[in-house]
Amino acid sequence: MQTPILNPLPAEWPALCQRPQLPVQNLEDTVRQIFSEIQRNGDIAVKKYTYFFDNAQLENLRVPEAIVENSSTLISEALKNAMLLAKNSIEKFHSSQKETVRYIETNPGVTCWRASRAIDKVGIYIPGGTAPLFSTVLMLGIPAKLAGCRDIILCTPPDAQGNINPAILYAAQLVGINTIYSIGGIQAIGAMTFGTESVLKVDKIFGPGNQFVTAAKQAALHYGVAIDLPAGPSELLVIADTTANPEFVAADLLSQAEHGADSQVMLLSDNEEMIRAILKAITVQLKTLPRKGIIEKALASSKAIVLPTISECIAFSNSYAPEHLIIASENPEPYTDKITNAGSVFLGNYSCESAGDYASGTNHTLPTNGYARNYSGVSLDSFVKKITFQQLTADGIRTIGPAIATMAEAEQLDAHKNAVVLRLKNATNV
Amino acid sequence: MQTPILNPLPAEWPALCQRPQLPVQNLEDTVRQIFSEIQRNGDIAVKKYTYFFDNAQLENLRVPEAIVENSSTLISEALKNAMLLAKNSIEKFHSSQKETVRYIETNPGVTCWRASRAIDKVGIYIPGGTAPLFSTVLMLGIPAKLAGCRDIILCTPPDAQGNINPAILYAAQLVGINTIYSIGGIQAIGAMTFGTESVLKVDKIFGPGNQFVTAAKQAALHYGVAIDLPAGPSELLVIADTTANPEFVAADLLSQAEHGADSQVMLLSDNEEMIRAILKAITVQLKTLPRKGIIEKALASSKAIVLPTISECIAFSNSYAPEHLIIASENPEPYTDKITNAGSVFLGNYSCESAGDYASGTNHTLPTNGYARNYSGVSLDSFVKKITFQQLTADGIRTIGPAIATMAEAEQLDAHKNAVVLRLKNATNV
Repeated sequence: MQTPILNPLPAEWPALCQRPQLPVQNLEDTVRQIFSEIQRNGDIAVKKYTYFFDNAQLENLRVPEAIVENSSTLISEALKNAMLLAKNSIEKFHSSQKETVRYIETNPGVTCWRASRAIDKVGIYIPGGTAPLFSTVLMLGIPAKLAGCRDIILCTPPDAQGNINPAILYAAQLVGINTIYSIGGIQAIGAMTFGTESVLKVDKIFGPGNQFVTAAKQAALHYGVAIDLPAGPSELLVIADTTANPEFVAADLLSQAEHGADSQVMLLSDNEEMIRAILKAITVQLKTLPRKGIIEKALASSKAIVLPTISECIAFSNSYAPEHLIIASENPEPYTDKITNAGSVFLGNYSCESAGDYASGTNHTLPTNGYARNYSGVSLDSFVKKITFQQLTADGIRTIGPAIATMAEAEQLDAHKNAVVLRLKNATNV
Repeated sequence: MQTPILNPLPAEWPALCQRPQLPVQNLEDTVRQIFSEIQRNGDIAVKKYTYFFDNAQLENLRVPEAIVENSSTLISEALKNAMLLAKNSIEKFHSSQKETVRYIETNPGVTCWRASRAIDKVGIYIPGGTAPLFSTVLMLGIPAKLAGCRDIILCTPPDAQGNINPAILYAAQLVGINTIYSIGGIQAIGAMTFGTESVLKVDKIFGPGNQFVTAAKQAALHYGVAIDLPAGPSELLVIADTTANPEFVAADLLSQAEHGADSQVMLLSDNEEMIRAILKAITVQLKTLPRKGIIEKALASSKAIVLPTISECIAFSNSYAPEHLIIASENPEPYTDKITNAGSVFLGNYSCESAGDYASGTNHTLPTNGYARNYSGVSLDSFVKKITFQQLTADGIRTIGPAIATMAEAEQLDAHKNAVVLRLKNATNV
């Protein structure tokens, strides 16, 4: 990324918008085998694969409530307070997504409306590894609770001693999730897809994961389970105008890059000097960061691009359809309306991506890999179905009945016509 | 269905909720081959398969505008007026689904909101066959237009002479779709997935279809295209209390059954006599219906069930999760709140499914096969993405910055922390 690309023509944009192609292991057979064992043997199969993949020998898959409760003694007050602030923000923003029921009389005597109903049973997957992703527990658990989902379960892989990081347990407890399983990977997704003696079969699975989890979530779709979003590496595009703060932009690009070697960051500006200042700040800041190795790999497939105007930067961004988009400018308002494809947008010099990752209130589960063209991020909507209702009076059937009969006949569906004609006859006698 | 099942125990419900298992042909290899030819050869491959499957030799894949315009001379005034009434209803109801932007100050200096943006390029598939499904053109075209989708294209298979039914062309014209292709089946979905010399590559594909279309839509998902809903045969569940009209209910069940031999209808009541009266009315009405053969096949896998109370009928219906649910009662209101899983609900004796299929205003593209548990039907939402935005002031970063830094540190993401700390330092100097 250290060599800016100057004024590429629109014909060159599609190639520049390509995500790095990573070697993808074909895991379909592995998933099929583990799923089929879980279908047949339930908990026994789940325990077998937990030992195989996570080296943990578990008596019980479910984390005892005493352990969950005890988590609050194991984390700092500062972290608890931070989580509480984040919870309040997320709750406030996602509450605003509740839809009020609007009764629409489309024709005299014909009233239609729609109402939200929670998805009954949802499963949340939280990856393991060195860093405990408790923020994702908040981002998925809070809207699930707000939506009123009846059963919310959480799966996360144990360490070799069978333990779960207390920050994850505390976050779950904070949002009101008490059913937590120490299960990870394909076996977690399989258990939630089919149900076992211990684990509830769910209607929808949420949460990030490695390529094993991703492959398993894809497979779960074939068994009637819904999933939150297609998966892909995280990404950030920054558009910096001359009023951007190069230090801030560099820090944002680095924060995205530290997610993984497959993360991608894109830097766009109408000003080459600004780009050079940002690239310089990256070099300086990078030196002190613990995840330097990962970041350098991510930066290798990242790009800095100069375009003649900020409008063209936005047009490029719409082609790229980034998961996260920062408009680094003192005056971002004029650009906002032109943004058509993005997961979440951060406006102005103080709106860092970290804010949305943790505590501003927006969700951090967002469409990656160009899916911002055709998918929305997770919101309260992701945890409900919107059911339409209608009620016709005798008047209503008189108003629209003849049109229905005419259309049904033209579609050669006589029984459809008959259902209306019978009612029309009856309604004229009312 | 002619022998009612009396008071099955809840333990027996899951078996009764099973959909008829149809032999599914494995079409993955066929789809893969046709897709790969379309990727390589574009229009030539599409034309080849149009000849192979539809026996039509086409010069141009696109229907000339003169032919589209001429369609209005080929259909009756009555049908035109009916379509216009339906269009107005659908427009009115779907307009009510527009979301107003709400700016939420989640914390002092932290403002979050979300705004809808149309999906740029959408493709609508309309099946061919003897009956022209122009109603689906309205159901998908109208919300696409309301959402503001930039490019809306429509594919529908030609007859052997290369012609499209004028009712489909007229409906497309009525909603403002001018880009229509005489392409059907796998080759239509492939053309919209990859794009060809004539056909635009789209972001999302909508519309029903046979098993070839279904398999192709599933495959399209692997190439970054979104689809409306997982597919399945159409279904209706009716709950009739003692105030139902047996003739009306019989007509509704028959209207659902005529969709196809794989359609399923379920009849529930707390009153065995009511069920027997409805079954008798089915026998009488069936005699005069042209699609008698199809209907009889569908009825063979359908069920009539008596349960002790209407509350239990609703509980059963929630387990079944029907695409369409009719509450056949003079007083349906008390039941409404208990309905949790259904695609679209019809309340009262005058609210026939045909109303929602054509002209009341609700959408008829709905989740089947139990997917009403975890998917919503098509609505304005299906044609937009909801993008979140946020803007923090210096005050905002002072309010939530320390919490972000604490959480980022606990997740071992130091670059995330750094992006906040830099701004916090700066903000204290503002």
